[in-house]
Amino acid sequence: MARMGKGYSAIVLLSGGLDSSTLLYYVKRQYRPLGIVFLYGQRHDREIRSALSIAKAAGVDVKKLRLPFPETGSALLDKSVSIPSRLSKKIPPTYVPARNIVFLSLALSFAEAYGVDKIFIGVNAIDYSGYPDCRPEFVDAFNKVIRVGTKKGVEGKGVEVLAPFIHMTKAEIIKIGLSLGVPYELTWSCYRGEDLPCGTCDSCRLRARGFKEAGANDPLLSDKGLS
Amino acid sequence: MARMGKGYSAIVLLSGGLDSSTLLYYVKRQYRPLGIVFLYGQRHDREIRSALSIAKAAGVDVKKLRLPFPETGSALLDKSVSIPSRLSKKIPPTYVPARNIVFLSLALSFAEAYGVDKIFIGVNAIDYSGYPDCRPEFVDAFNKVIRVGTKKGVEGKGVEVLAPFIHMTKAEIIKIGLSLGVPYELTWSCYRGEDLPCGTCDSCRLRARGFKEAGANDPLLSDKGLS
Repeated sequence: MARMGKGYSAIVLLSGGLDSSTLLYYVKRQYRPLGIVFLYGQRHDREIRSALSIAKAAGVDVKKLRLPFPETGSALLDKSVSIPSRLSKKIPPTYVPARNIVFLSLALSFAEAYGVDKIFIGVNAIDYSGYPDCRPEFVDAFNKVIRVGTKKGVEGKGVEVLAPFIHMTKAEIIKIGLSLGVPYELTWSCYRGEDLPCGTCDSCRLRARGFKEAGANDPLLSDKGLS
Repeated sequence: MARMGKGYSAIVLLSGGLDSSTLLYYVKRQYRPLGIVFLYGQRHDREIRSALSIAKAAGVDVKKLRLPFPETGSALLDKSVSIPSRLSKKIPPTYVPARNIVFLSLALSFAEAYGVDKIFIGVNAIDYSGYPDCRPEFVDAFNKVIRVGTKKGVEGKGVEVLAPFIHMTKAEIIKIGLSLGVPYELTWSCYRGEDLPCGTCDSCRLRARGFKEAGANDPLLSDKGLS
């Protein structure tokens, strides 16, 4: 089983965005990670190219998994639903039903099959869009599912989901990434997935605020002549 | 959203086996179900044909979802691992890593997107193979994940996973099915997926014992001249 897993000691979920890209560099200091990127019908599929570029830059193997998500229920899946241009206190229409639950479940299946006992996810519950599946109570509940619902879990040697950035600000995450040499010019955060970041969606706003608070320039924008 | 879901009031996970087929008939007395059948690389893909036949016989819409499971870690995914010919007290090699966790996660995504608030799963923790993801503690833990990790969950109007057969014997399930006219000759339980049920794998043994205890003949075997 471990042989099939090629000696990986961790799985890292990659989205092509800032948090998961930083996480990959953060994890690879200590582990031999396998990256997983999910194709789930997202309208901003440009993030997939970014995730693959980041994995390549980090020298990490990556697995692409195509998932049959519903074509409705989220502004990221259904182009007839518009993406808001300001941050809100409510869960925004860019929420994708059960996204991280599905992602972690598949990662869990591969982890258990490959003999890998750690899954890292770059969720953050400080500078975030309010998605329920980015919060500590969700990660805790999912780990309980692993303990009671998997073979390794009931044998007491289960897989564990770790979210080391969950309580950090975006600026703190960026500072870690800059110290680790994360090539942020390769990452992609904008929900709109056009040629240039829109600068107004949740994800662009959180990213811009993070770089500002970190006292750094966003190399993605510098590259595009936007800063 | 409800419009997209075509007015379904429940999702039923279908495997083509005895429990989920009985469940479909049990649920459709009270709900308008959508069946979901998963293609996950199982070697006994004959069960998929059975699931589709059962849904057709029941007059229920069915959605086929293809999932990228690992190709190792289970005798049902990897033909180089043999299927045991006797029941064991340990979790057998036919265990598929995180299978029901993945299935429920995807069903949850569709349920939330379609505005459906009940997901039925035919798991049973009495006459079963000892899989951890068939037990009440697993279903409870997954329902907790829904409450804290989905939009509808945190809004207090979340989806719920229901497993009405979880504490029943196989014979009790069969008796319910016979009373509801479930066409058991269309179902498929054998893990080996040959032309005829092998009669010796876990699943065949549990099925045979169930019919015997219910005092009934298995119409699948009668059809094949095996009883």
